[in-house]
Amino acid sequence: MTRTLITGGLVITAAEELTADVLIEDQRIVALASTGSEVAAGWRAERVIDASGKYVIPGGVDAHTHMELPFGGTKASDSFETGTRAAAWGGTTTIVDFAVQQVGDSLRAGLDSWHAKAEGNCAIDYAFHTIVSDVTDEVLKELDLLTESGESTSFKLFMAYPGVFYSDDGKILRAMQRCAGNGGLIMMHAENGIAIDVLVAQALAAGHTDPRYHGEVRRELLEAEATHRAIKLAQVAGAPLYVVHVSAASALAELATARDQGLPVFGETCPQYLFLSTDNLAEPDFEGAKYVCSTPLRPREHQAELWKGLRTDDLQVVSTDHCPFCFVGQKELGRGDFSKIPNGLPGVENRMDLLHQAVVEGRISRRRWIEIACAAPARMFGLYPRKGTIAPGADADVVIYDPTASQTLSAATHHMNVDYSAYEGRQVTGRVQTVLSRGTTVLQDGRWLGRAGHGGFLRRGTCQYLG
Amino acid sequence: MTRTLITGGLVITAAEELTADVLIEDQRIVALASTGSEVAAGWRAERVIDASGKYVIPGGVDAHTHMELPFGGTKASDSFETGTRAAAWGGTTTIVDFAVQQVGDSLRAGLDSWHAKAEGNCAIDYAFHTIVSDVTDEVLKELDLLTESGESTSFKLFMAYPGVFYSDDGKILRAMQRCAGNGGLIMMHAENGIAIDVLVAQALAAGHTDPRYHGEVRRELLEAEATHRAIKLAQVAGAPLYVVHVSAASALAELATARDQGLPVFGETCPQYLFLSTDNLAEPDFEGAKYVCSTPLRPREHQAELWKGLRTDDLQVVSTDHCPFCFVGQKELGRGDFSKIPNGLPGVENRMDLLHQAVVEGRISRRRWIEIACAAPARMFGLYPRKGTIAPGADADVVIYDPTASQTLSAATHHMNVDYSAYEGRQVTGRVQTVLSRGTTVLQDGRWLGRAGHGGFLRRGTCQYLG
Amino acid sequence: MTRTLITGGLVITAAEELTADVLIEDQRIVALASTGSEVAAGWRAERVIDASGKYVIPGGVDAHTHMELPFGGTKASDSFETGTRAAAWGGTTTIVDFAVQQVGDSLRAGLDSWHAKAEGNCAIDYAFHTIVSDVTDEVLKELDLLTESGESTSFKLFMAYPGVFYSDDGKILRAMQRCAGNGGLIMMHAENGIAIDVLVAQALAAGHTDPRYHGEVRRELLEAEATHRAIKLAQVAGAPLYVVHVSAASALAELATARDQGLPVFGETCPQYLFLSTDNLAEPDFEGAKYVCSTPLRPREHQAELWKGLRTDDLQVVSTDHCPFCFVGQKELGRGDFSKIPNGLPGVENRMDLLHQAVVEGRISRRRWIEIACAAPARMFGLYPRKGTIAPGADADVVIYDPTASQTLSAATHHMNVDYSAYEGRQVTGRVQTVLSRGTTVLQDGRWLGRAGHGGFLRRGTCQYLG
Amino acid sequence: MTRTLITGGLVITAAEELTADVLIEDQRIVALASTGSEVAAGWRAERVIDASGKYVIPGGVDAHTHMELPFGGTKASDSFETGTRAAAWGGTTTIVDFAVQQVGDSLRAGLDSWHAKAEGNCAIDYAFHTIVSDVTDEVLKELDLLTESGESTSFKLFMAYPGVFYSDDGKILRAMQRCAGNGGLIMMHAENGIAIDVLVAQALAAGHTDPRYHGEVRRELLEAEATHRAIKLAQVAGAPLYVVHVSAASALAELATARDQGLPVFGETCPQYLFLSTDNLAEPDFEGAKYVCSTPLRPREHQAELWKGLRTDDLQVVSTDHCPFCFVGQKELGRGDFSKIPNGLPGVENRMDLLHQAVVEGRISRRRWIEIACAAPARMFGLYPRKGTIAPGADADVVIYDPTASQTLSAATHHMNVDYSAYEGRQVTGRVQTVLSRGTTVLQDGRWLGRAGHGGFLRRGTCQYLG
Repeated sequence: MTRTLITGGLVITAAEELTADVLIEDQRIVALASTGSEVAAGWRAERVIDASGKYVIPGGVDAHTHMELPFGGTKASDSFETGTRAAAWGGTTTIVDFAVQQVGDSLRAGLDSWHAKAEGNCAIDYAFHTIVSDVTDEVLKELDLLTESGESTSFKLFMAYPGVFYSDDGKILRAMQRCAGNGGLIMMHAENGIAIDVLVAQALAAGHTDPRYHGEVRRELLEAEATHRAIKLAQVAGAPLYVVHVSAASALAELATARDQGLPVFGETCPQYLFLSTDNLAEPDFEGAKYVCSTPLRPREHQAELWKGLRTDDLQVVSTDHCPFCFVGQKELGRGDFSKIPNGLPGVENRMDLLHQAVVEGRISRRRWIEIACAAPARMFGLYPRKGTIAPGADADVVIYDPTASQTLSAATHHMNVDYSAYEGRQVTGRVQTVLSRGTTVLQDGRWLGRAGHGGFLRRGTCQYLG
Repeated sequence: MTRTLITGGLVITAAEELTADVLIEDQRIVALASTGSEVAAGWRAERVIDASGKYVIPGGVDAHTHMELPFGGTKASDSFETGTRAAAWGGTTTIVDFAVQQVGDSLRAGLDSWHAKAEGNCAIDYAFHTIVSDVTDEVLKELDLLTESGESTSFKLFMAYPGVFYSDDGKILRAMQRCAGNGGLIMMHAENGIAIDVLVAQALAAGHTDPRYHGEVRRELLEAEATHRAIKLAQVAGAPLYVVHVSAASALAELATARDQGLPVFGETCPQYLFLSTDNLAEPDFEGAKYVCSTPLRPREHQAELWKGLRTDDLQVVSTDHCPFCFVGQKELGRGDFSKIPNGLPGVENRMDLLHQAVVEGRISRRRWIEIACAAPARMFGLYPRKGTIAPGADADVVIYDPTASQTLSAATHHMNVDYSAYEGRQVTGRVQTVLSRGTTVLQDGRWLGRAGHGGFLRRGTCQYLG
Repeated sequence: MTRTLITGGLVITAAEELTADVLIEDQRIVALASTGSEVAAGWRAERVIDASGKYVIPGGVDAHTHMELPFGGTKASDSFETGTRAAAWGGTTTIVDFAVQQVGDSLRAGLDSWHAKAEGNCAIDYAFHTIVSDVTDEVLKELDLLTESGESTSFKLFMAYPGVFYSDDGKILRAMQRCAGNGGLIMMHAENGIAIDVLVAQALAAGHTDPRYHGEVRRELLEAEATHRAIKLAQVAGAPLYVVHVSAASALAELATARDQGLPVFGETCPQYLFLSTDNLAEPDFEGAKYVCSTPLRPREHQAELWKGLRTDDLQVVSTDHCPFCFVGQKELGRGDFSKIPNGLPGVENRMDLLHQAVVEGRISRRRWIEIACAAPARMFGLYPRKGTIAPGADADVVIYDPTASQTLSAATHHMNVDYSAYEGRQVTGRVQTVLSRGTTVLQDGRWLGRAGHGGFLRRGTCQYLG
Repeated sequence: MTRTLITGGLVITAAEELTADVLIEDQRIVALASTGSEVAAGWRAERVIDASGKYVIPGGVDAHTHMELPFGGTKASDSFETGTRAAAWGGTTTIVDFAVQQVGDSLRAGLDSWHAKAEGNCAIDYAFHTIVSDVTDEVLKELDLLTESGESTSFKLFMAYPGVFYSDDGKILRAMQRCAGNGGLIMMHAENGIAIDVLVAQALAAGHTDPRYHGEVRRELLEAEATHRAIKLAQVAGAPLYVVHVSAASALAELATARDQGLPVFGETCPQYLFLSTDNLAEPDFEGAKYVCSTPLRPREHQAELWKGLRTDDLQVVSTDHCPFCFVGQKELGRGDFSKIPNGLPGVENRMDLLHQAVVEGRISRRRWIEIACAAPARMFGLYPRKGTIAPGADADVVIYDPTASQTLSAATHHMNVDYSAYEGRQVTGRVQTVLSRGTTVLQDGRWLGRAGHGGFLRRGTCQYLG
């Protein structure tokens, strides 16, 4: 057995802030004691990390990534190897990626394919949601099996992308009904893709091909509408619902209404919606393409509403929807036709820092930072308290965070495998200093000590926000 | 020129109640004068109707009927001849029926077919909406042409009945966009038919074949959802919207919200939703089949909300959705499978009396009675002030109504061609005494004086509720 | 008997627009006939007014004026003589003014005093509301008596002006309870005057003495709060409620919510809130004092919400709250202390024209213009159909309005007894041409033919929006 | 130094559930370690408590008690000695009582008086809110001083009880403005007492003297109204607000709306509103008097809404408003006049058990139980993490709770100094086994080991829910 001791830091969890020493035996946290107490003074360890003046926080849990995702004839530029390494550089020690069911195939086949991509390649622990592209009787049975085994206990459906991932309301209802019974959680991409496709075709026919039209045709009202519809279908099914990447204030309002009614409805937003806007989509020289993702960026005034939603807990989780495509050669596929721009932004490395910046700016408290970035995603997807907190019994996924360091976000210095940063040149206060993954130091003072294959696959429980 | 003079009655319109003599020259009302004034005392006419102690009201406008509608392998049991005669017996002097586009055909073809059914057969004036079953580029052009010519200025789409009338959200959006530009009015059957069909199949698979399951599977939430969605699509299109046969309190709430926002959104309900309930659908011995229609009857507590909506003007129109099928031989097609019961109720003859009963019971005022039954439907569908009011210049469609007579509604005495009454045995106060259609007396003191072919086709203007 | 005939105009009421000849016998309208009909062609009259190309509309009903009102040591500058003459110049033929109860006195005494001011001095008909300053057992009995006799069927209470008109919630509740039983209508000045007085004192203590601080301390939230409270008290009492001079969007939202619930709650706004804003209050050199009234003018963005409220019928009436004080010598009392500026604006002459301008600009329809300015105030305060419409039996209060004339509003040309215009220099389209009051021409083509004393006192029925 | 070790229990906090050993040095918790870990196995202590199969929870924090409160000519029957002892029996280790300012006196004088009552008499730690009966310039300064010193950082105002504790809206606004600047928290008794007093007088005049009329006159709408008003005043002042003893669903709805807007508005309810109803007030033979408190008990259907509010976090705290009066001799003062019944219920001993019963029944989770009963009140009133959690550094206020024991609540067995139980005969599952107050065992296995005077006065920080 190896002991690691982290001393003198300010331990921050979703619930507490306390000056405590943290004792790790092998891969797990086993004890916390008040710094300076007699008992703490007696602790000895093979490795002692002095965290005085630093934060000691749980490793981040990014519940929405798409490593190596095939999309529109290309694929996301981060592999599980490069993507999980970048995550760790940014203080994230767990990702939940999406295995994709091909239409006509089983969920099993999709998971097998994603296991093959990830296994042996990850620097940190990982889990899988499943994207359900085709709801059939067989697939419904798989929802039971996967939830029961814990291999995947959450299932994403799309109201967008007709002809690709799209499910109609009948399929959605059936999947929801199944999850009402088996404990699985339906995740929803809530945009009315059928209506959006009409607007896309009309825009292109009118010669509106620039990236900024991506933001215009994917109308806010059509995100709000789909969000409302998903909630009503979940209500009919008696099932919980998790809406991914909420970007529109009016969609958030639908979630707030549902939550006021006591419905088990949850929402996620992403740093890009909190820090970027349609101003970016309108950048000249096709630079707007860097910011093309769906749901799209919204006008700047939506940001304040999303921050409010994070404070009122109408949004519970901030994930990245990390899905990077290089500007050169990938985003460029959509020159002359915005609808051909691969959808997605890089971000897995930036999330913890950007959200800490919100702490610095007074938008959220330190505890809320840890809640939305670590604890809530872990609870939502059945990983808590193994992940997402600093407590006896938890995995020793620990980040020593320097709250006063300053850094400039840039493609020149980031570790994601993509040729641009969505936050190029942005200065933030706070920086990851040391990262432990299950007790192993993978990053220390700017030196990478991790390795592909250290990260393991995580079986999960069901959503811990429910009864 | 022939003059008709109606003396001494209480003239009631949506706006006024006044004791006045009404002077008709040929087919039109030309003047009103205070009863007993010098000028009135000087009026002479070929025919004088003494209306003392009676109401003098505009003939009813029933903006939603389905004479001879083919449905589920049978057709509605009232022809234009029997149906319009029954309408007149009930004090209604204008109907707006629905010409149906067959998938693959043009709207033109549908209208031609309906003209053929109606022409020469109607006892009262009639107009047509068009049911759009298939939104194509050609059909979009027809929306322009028909609105411009006034042959049909309102177009009904279905979010229910997949595979039959159903339009997806993209088709709906395109039709709405067209009407945003051309002045046409989209009418919507707002139920999420895709989701409902899943529940229908599950109910039948579970052996739930009784008519009452018709009410259970067509969930209130799925009417509210579709209503919300239709409103949002109309908002995206910048178009007005008229929601037909609103039956659920929560759907009404969506309309109220939209109207609070100042959106041009309108709603219709029907007597069956105001007077009947799921209690009727649950009547034993398959009697519930008599009450099968879509949207379905709702639990009794919805009635008070609908009455409130009529008072607050969140609902503007009461039509009948008259679509009768005989119990014997027609409704019975659904024994053992509620989904095979032809959808529809008889009612064109009962509407004016049932709504007057609401006046008697204090639910609505006399003027509101005339507004929701005569003036508002005429305005909504571009027939005002030719129809729907008593004013100089209006068509002489006039009803002398005895507010104190009492009658018992019954299949034994009604004139609709159907073997049951949805209101069998119900006692109401008030009864039509005399009916004029464009100056011609078609009904007098219980004697039928009308004839098939008197009624003519009405070209219409556009919705008069808009700017 | 004298006959007057108005031919060929477009008769506009709240309900209809029709080209008709209007026949008047002595003081009353007795008949309308289609222009060009045989019957109309046969009409003869002593006096014939050709209204071709003009509107024929009911005379305006201004339900909120304060002629000669004592306020803050001075009194409103229009007497009943000058004020009613100015009203007629502006197309208004009925005013409802407010008799004021002095604390310690009876309502009777207040009414007697106001009768003495008005009798023999008015150019047009007039009626009285009563301001209740002191709710006692005796006053409660007077509410019954006055409502029964029709001398005053509406009673205004103040949640503002502590120490002057203010009633606490207990007094308000008791008055409301009484009116729940007797048919009277409580009118409410809804501002939280207790809280506002704290803010006034703080502003003055901080040296904030300019007129614009009047708008700042009378916080929008405190109008909304009082509106909400008045609604709840009315709900407890089971009484209807009419909120005067609504200026804040959030107060309007409270009315809209109440109306969605089906509560008998009504709202009035005034031209100053529709056309002016805090920009005016901020005019330099103490000019802002011209625009000091309570409720105060609001920021410009509230205007669109008020127009929306007028379209959705969440506001039913536009009155003027006409209460003029000259800038020189009266408004100037508040130099150096905004709280000493007499509260009130001139407007009785401008209302019909300003609202017609809104028709021209597409904000409201012509019928809605007549409804909010004539019919609705008449109905609200029990004067309909004697006032507020063009119909057989109505008083012959008729305005011939030229919809194409243009004019510039100005103190140089107006007839109100006040040295400034709140709308100085504003150009509007439309102008009054001829005004009849009970059949007597009081204004014709810019010539004044009226006389003080023509106008008579009107007994009233109860609110016609109820039951 | 004395060490206490609690082994093998399930430690439950608002954030976590973990099987851990808890190490106490003297009065504080210093460490937690996973049960069975090597480090835990090495711990030694003078006293070891085996908590296997039990819950180890923070001692309860009851933020609303009234020991010895003078009210209506009598005083609450529990002294600080008997009341704090009863609290400890029920698993509560901290109370926050209310020092009362007499009108004309200073807050200082009120606090001095309450210190004198409490000092040396309490079995557990205690703190004071201050009831502000008279907002003057001097009192406003005291708000600053007391908040700064931590002697009292929260101040209760009353919109009820005119002539006793009542503050008008101006006084409330001024106090709120002060707290907007100084960090203090305004607590509000939100009922429109002015209106209620009218209804009380009317009820008594009508001979309605039974206790059940207490519930009828204190109308739900008047709680909702006052809640809305308090929120608006706080918004004007820019201050946070804590509404005490919320009992009406519609008042809760006001809080929910405010929270959706992101306002710093908080709400408390009490066990009596969650478990009792107007049915109790209607108990015959004056037994209803036992349940007279203000806000009053509500009809049974409100309970579900309150539970929902606790789940959605629109209510954050459950306190008791413990204010016992014996039935004999005290409650009886109101025979023949419900308004003379002393207002208040006993409950300090029952809160933790009743809320655990809600866990057993599935209404709330275990963590939420601890949050609403321990952590949230401690945070709300500046006592966290000293009180309200189990964490290194916290006071060793710890309860060993047996989740499977069953007990029957009864006056025969309770320790409160009052002759009845509001929950007489109610069976609940779960029971306190052992209670530590700052490391001292005050209760063990049904044996009282505590002593008056052990409990100390707590200075407090400001509300930890802000910024």
